[in-house]
Amino acid sequence: MVSGTSEKKTGRIRLGMVGGGQGAFIGAVHRLAARMDDEYEFVAGALSANPERAKASGKELGLAADRVYTDFKAMAQAEARRADGIEAVSIVTPNHVHFPACKAFIEAGIHVICDKPLSFNLKEAKQLETLLKKHPKVIFALTHNYSGYPMIRQARDMVKSGMLGEIRYVQVEYVQGWLATDLEKSGQKQAAWRTDPKQSGAGGAVGDIGTHAEQLAGFVTGLKIDSLSSDLTSFVKGRKLDDNVSVLLRYKGGAKGMLWASQIAVGHENGLTLRVFGTKGGIDWAQENPNYLGYNELGKPRTILTRGGAGANAEAARVTRVPSGHPEGYLEGFANIYTEVARAIKAARAGKKLAREVTFPGIADGIEGMAFIEACVKSSRNNGKWTKL
Amino acid sequence: MVSGTSEKKTGRIRLGMVGGGQGAFIGAVHRLAARMDDEYEFVAGALSANPERAKASGKELGLAADRVYTDFKAMAQAEARRADGIEAVSIVTPNHVHFPACKAFIEAGIHVICDKPLSFNLKEAKQLETLLKKHPKVIFALTHNYSGYPMIRQARDMVKSGMLGEIRYVQVEYVQGWLATDLEKSGQKQAAWRTDPKQSGAGGAVGDIGTHAEQLAGFVTGLKIDSLSSDLTSFVKGRKLDDNVSVLLRYKGGAKGMLWASQIAVGHENGLTLRVFGTKGGIDWAQENPNYLGYNELGKPRTILTRGGAGANAEAARVTRVPSGHPEGYLEGFANIYTEVARAIKAARAGKKLAREVTFPGIADGIEGMAFIEACVKSSRNNGKWTKL
Amino acid sequence: MVSGTSEKKTGRIRLGMVGGGQGAFIGAVHRLAARMDDEYEFVAGALSANPERAKASGKELGLAADRVYTDFKAMAQAEARRADGIEAVSIVTPNHVHFPACKAFIEAGIHVICDKPLSFNLKEAKQLETLLKKHPKVIFALTHNYSGYPMIRQARDMVKSGMLGEIRYVQVEYVQGWLATDLEKSGQKQAAWRTDPKQSGAGGAVGDIGTHAEQLAGFVTGLKIDSLSSDLTSFVKGRKLDDNVSVLLRYKGGAKGMLWASQIAVGHENGLTLRVFGTKGGIDWAQENPNYLGYNELGKPRTILTRGGAGANAEAARVTRVPSGHPEGYLEGFANIYTEVARAIKAARAGKKLAREVTFPGIADGIEGMAFIEACVKSSRNNGKWTKL
Amino acid sequence: MVSGTSEKKTGRIRLGMVGGGQGAFIGAVHRLAARMDDEYEFVAGALSANPERAKASGKELGLAADRVYTDFKAMAQAEARRADGIEAVSIVTPNHVHFPACKAFIEAGIHVICDKPLSFNLKEAKQLETLLKKHPKVIFALTHNYSGYPMIRQARDMVKSGMLGEIRYVQVEYVQGWLATDLEKSGQKQAAWRTDPKQSGAGGAVGDIGTHAEQLAGFVTGLKIDSLSSDLTSFVKGRKLDDNVSVLLRYKGGAKGMLWASQIAVGHENGLTLRVFGTKGGIDWAQENPNYLGYNELGKPRTILTRGGAGANAEAARVTRVPSGHPEGYLEGFANIYTEVARAIKAARAGKKLAREVTFPGIADGIEGMAFIEACVKSSRNNGKWTKL
Repeated sequence: MVSGTSEKKTGRIRLGMVGGGQGAFIGAVHRLAARMDDEYEFVAGALSANPERAKASGKELGLAADRVYTDFKAMAQAEARRADGIEAVSIVTPNHVHFPACKAFIEAGIHVICDKPLSFNLKEAKQLETLLKKHPKVIFALTHNYSGYPMIRQARDMVKSGMLGEIRYVQVEYVQGWLATDLEKSGQKQAAWRTDPKQSGAGGAVGDIGTHAEQLAGFVTGLKIDSLSSDLTSFVKGRKLDDNVSVLLRYKGGAKGMLWASQIAVGHENGLTLRVFGTKGGIDWAQENPNYLGYNELGKPRTILTRGGAGANAEAARVTRVPSGHPEGYLEGFANIYTEVARAIKAARAGKKLAREVTFPGIADGIEGMAFIEACVKSSRNNGKWTKL
Repeated sequence: MVSGTSEKKTGRIRLGMVGGGQGAFIGAVHRLAARMDDEYEFVAGALSANPERAKASGKELGLAADRVYTDFKAMAQAEARRADGIEAVSIVTPNHVHFPACKAFIEAGIHVICDKPLSFNLKEAKQLETLLKKHPKVIFALTHNYSGYPMIRQARDMVKSGMLGEIRYVQVEYVQGWLATDLEKSGQKQAAWRTDPKQSGAGGAVGDIGTHAEQLAGFVTGLKIDSLSSDLTSFVKGRKLDDNVSVLLRYKGGAKGMLWASQIAVGHENGLTLRVFGTKGGIDWAQENPNYLGYNELGKPRTILTRGGAGANAEAARVTRVPSGHPEGYLEGFANIYTEVARAIKAARAGKKLAREVTFPGIADGIEGMAFIEACVKSSRNNGKWTKL
Repeated sequence: MVSGTSEKKTGRIRLGMVGGGQGAFIGAVHRLAARMDDEYEFVAGALSANPERAKASGKELGLAADRVYTDFKAMAQAEARRADGIEAVSIVTPNHVHFPACKAFIEAGIHVICDKPLSFNLKEAKQLETLLKKHPKVIFALTHNYSGYPMIRQARDMVKSGMLGEIRYVQVEYVQGWLATDLEKSGQKQAAWRTDPKQSGAGGAVGDIGTHAEQLAGFVTGLKIDSLSSDLTSFVKGRKLDDNVSVLLRYKGGAKGMLWASQIAVGHENGLTLRVFGTKGGIDWAQENPNYLGYNELGKPRTILTRGGAGANAEAARVTRVPSGHPEGYLEGFANIYTEVARAIKAARAGKKLAREVTFPGIADGIEGMAFIEACVKSSRNNGKWTKL
Repeated sequence: MVSGTSEKKTGRIRLGMVGGGQGAFIGAVHRLAARMDDEYEFVAGALSANPERAKASGKELGLAADRVYTDFKAMAQAEARRADGIEAVSIVTPNHVHFPACKAFIEAGIHVICDKPLSFNLKEAKQLETLLKKHPKVIFALTHNYSGYPMIRQARDMVKSGMLGEIRYVQVEYVQGWLATDLEKSGQKQAAWRTDPKQSGAGGAVGDIGTHAEQLAGFVTGLKIDSLSSDLTSFVKGRKLDDNVSVLLRYKGGAKGMLWASQIAVGHENGLTLRVFGTKGGIDWAQENPNYLGYNELGKPRTILTRGGAGANAEAARVTRVPSGHPEGYLEGFANIYTEVARAIKAARAGKKLAREVTFPGIADGIEGMAFIEACVKSSRNNGKWTKL
């Protein structure tokens, strides 16, 4: 069951970008993800807060000179006025810029695809939620890209359909080792802003990768966190934000769980793994080898489901490009988010109802993520007191 | 580096057993472990609390009729009087019998090899500690068998020698799925006593397998738990003891950790895994494939150390029987505990000092294990309050 | 060491395609691969031998009506005449069309990117070689896509630099199970042409996937096959071409090897694996989890090199898009071939010398592949007689 | 489904040994294997061809002085005369001694458990077969120990019961790296005799480990080799016997296969793996992690069967000692051969018919192994000519 690559050269969506200029990492990933299924056309950008870098970046990426901006507010207004203005914008700046940038484009009536975490703090997140209610035509997506992996879609559907029974326990972790030393002091840009509370907000590891783990577990299980008890640590001397967080979870309805996010686990790269256990079965998945989903049915031998293989379901198939045994990876998963958003934008263009199966993370995921960060920080400051989200 | 199989048919240690009769599981494992390196001779037993089963079991195992006992106290006294009486006894009963049985043999001056957890509660554990101080010639071992695996010995030595730098974080888990249903109601003997607070004590999963995880982490890292925060759950309706426990750990000296033990994780068999991260490196190990140890040195590619292979150290080699690539398993690891104890008993026999490298779990591990259980139960009752051990 | 995503919206190469219309599989993969790094613009096509399907496919893909062709010869001539004509064409038809299509475009002076195997037989392959000598400005690439994987580039460089010493033995296999039944009788298009000697040529599994294995081994080791002994089998009744082939290899210089390709190995998807052993070390790689390369140095513990990780070399880095731990897959590897070809075309455009490190499979690989197929068929007909290539 | 540890202290079988003295490796493995289920009592030995080492070894192992022999013929005669003489003997010498030692004990009416390969050449093997026909009461076992692994028993039963359909292809390999250098020149005893044609016979790798692969494939599939084509190589300069062998196989009935045995594959330890493919399914197994069996049913997702787990069958269960998730290894598999032989000896003692399910490798396996070696050597000398066994 493979849906195959979707390609629609006609009617591509005009896309802009804030952030993602020279020296950045995630901007190029967003552009590639947008390009993969040919649903978008990249035409405008405020690619850097530094005007010279913004211009050089725009030129390098082939933008027309009059659509290279040095200020995202100006960009939002100018593009909104153009007949051929952008229909959607990707926000790929450090966290503290997410809110004002999102606000500018939402108010300009332009769809927003924002990198995670949503904002600097929960207050901002809620303001965006309110703003979006005022602009109901604006489509808002948050790139919790891991929810784009086909086997994650499969897992979610398996839970939904009751194959696992009632969910009891969730073990999720996102473990890295790249900040085991004080890399930020070397001037490494990625490390610098992620460990700076002025750019990242109150959460370090908990915000950067903990929210991915939290969102993934919620996406797959459909469970909502009721309360949590956490322990944040900054193991590297002088670091201002946490680089390791341990969290106990209590979900609404009685399920429980455990979340661990670390940036000091030497030797780990992007060790995002999820295990879910219900009364009738369990599943397990690892991001670093994402084309497989372990499935243990109660009282049966373990099975390995593969993307596109005999056990793949329709939800996996609709976001799958190539047959089983030819691995898809991070970029394909990321692109699935963009393509899902494209489906929503095109449905809106056509005034059609969005197909039921189209799904991508949005403002609710963003609110939950920010609430998760704040609850973790608060619980940890209160010596692990169980804290409601 | 392989030390090879040690065999000494001469001077074998005379061994007795309490528990382990027909229908039991772990008794046969102990006997096999004792037999593996031919260091012991099994000659006496009180194999069951049921006199008829005790006799039938003794006969089946070839014990002389006059050394088949129906009461362990009588056995301790009778054997102590014999010139050819047992030198050591294995206690392999349900938990609540550990204390009186240990007491009887310690007082009789007979070495004790006791299954874990040490006792019914911490109070009993401390009484045994006191008793052992009064009987300093009695050697006491607790079969935390996983500490007998060669790659665990290797890991411990790597930590000791500083290869990992200062330890920061420990993630340890022991995950099973066999109690995902109310198996105890079917009359399955193993399930029945483990879920019965009268036989097991205050801990279910936390006592049965959580203590193994706790001991393994401590054995490898040398760290002592300062305090913990835990959440115990009985997911199966009507179960009186926990079948899942999540614990956050704070070690003395600043390291932290996370422990998860579960009996409801459908599809897992004996998923005991350990990951340790320090400032200079990390290691990872999985009991189900125990001949490998992952080692990640800071800034270097990951290496896979194999038992007996190029990277194996002397501590692994001295408990290794066959060359690398020929897997050793659970029974060999268990046997290593018995053989280490035999070395201690033989050194005592000869009045010699025990070689520095001989190590096996003893009364201190037992005390820590019982303290761990009680702290977990207490913390969970106090809604996860951080609790000192 | 990550080179990052290259993107050059300006100066994109105008690309056409022969084959790849509705119902095809590999055409969409080629288009996506061409699009990934934004080096190509897809503008013309003869997408099907069926005129109606050709037109519908062209429309669906957004081609201008005057650049939708129903005949590839007409397309070659028309595009060669246009000022904005295509600079390169992708040939993605069944095998028997490769030769005439390649010929038409080479003669029109248009660069060719041809799917493998090169042609229907060795004779045709040699004719193409001769033709290319007459048209030295035409760049010719063959999409042995697996040679685009970063860790394969790394492996090749490790061999080249002598890290493995003198190569002794190569074990390579490409194992699938999808043709374990007579799927071709169900009308499945992929199965039908691959098992039809009129469309595929003399080789079944040996041509379709055996050549991939042969090319990969040669690409990594630099070794040339001197002679081979093979055993071709059609296990499925009534199948006209082999669905399983076992080959013993003797390389020039004394190395030996073993190649296995199968389409009847139930449960396997695209099990392309390579192991290479030299006097100083060995490596191993598996296509289904391609971001890892096992490296065993003589007398040292095994290491796992990861794409973008601590042990990644410059050759891996220059074809890597995202950091280690975020998996890249089949499409990224495929895209690397397209991007390497783009570098060659752009260097040619600019009259510059091509950078030394740029590499992609070309006519020589095609000749070798066809010679390999013919030698395998011949050897098997001669009951495994060692046969020179 | 776990049968549990069998233990029978009463009525143990009196066992002797030829070879296996100080400095040897495999002798200790045999003794441990004999001891594991307590079915044997080790009481006599001619442990070395060197009289002093024989005596020292016997003393060390606790043999009575009058049962320490320096000559195996004398031992056979003396033990046959004793009322308490050995009932069975283990032959664990280098290959060239197997024949005379086996002969001596068979003629003395003593059961023989002989290490593999059976003899120095096929001629000797056939003489032993003839001799055994003359001594029908003598039980003869050959320690192809890998056929003792539970999951191999399971695999065999799955094939027998038709779960895989008609077998089409077998891929089996035994890959080591320990002889990648000229280790034999360093005086290493294991390397020295294995590379010496006077002690090993005509086969190097093909005899030492190739026969294990050949036997395992035959044991699991029940297939008999009809003919083979092989290529033997001595990669290490000056080595007299092959250290790498590639073999193409044709089985009676139409199945085919491929066997690779190597001692120069740097980084491999005891990489014995087996894959079997039939019309209805495929299985795969790896000796280094032997508690798992991969099973791919046609058109279904892959399953992982575990020793003792939900999918384990009765044949696996009857040779399983501990529950799933507690790994059993090489020694347990080896011990299963000894215990199966014990069952045969005890049935013979009692004049009872042997239970149908008891199985262990015997003279037929030995004949086949020697025929396999000779055919490989012959085929290779004839440049790979297909050679009948």
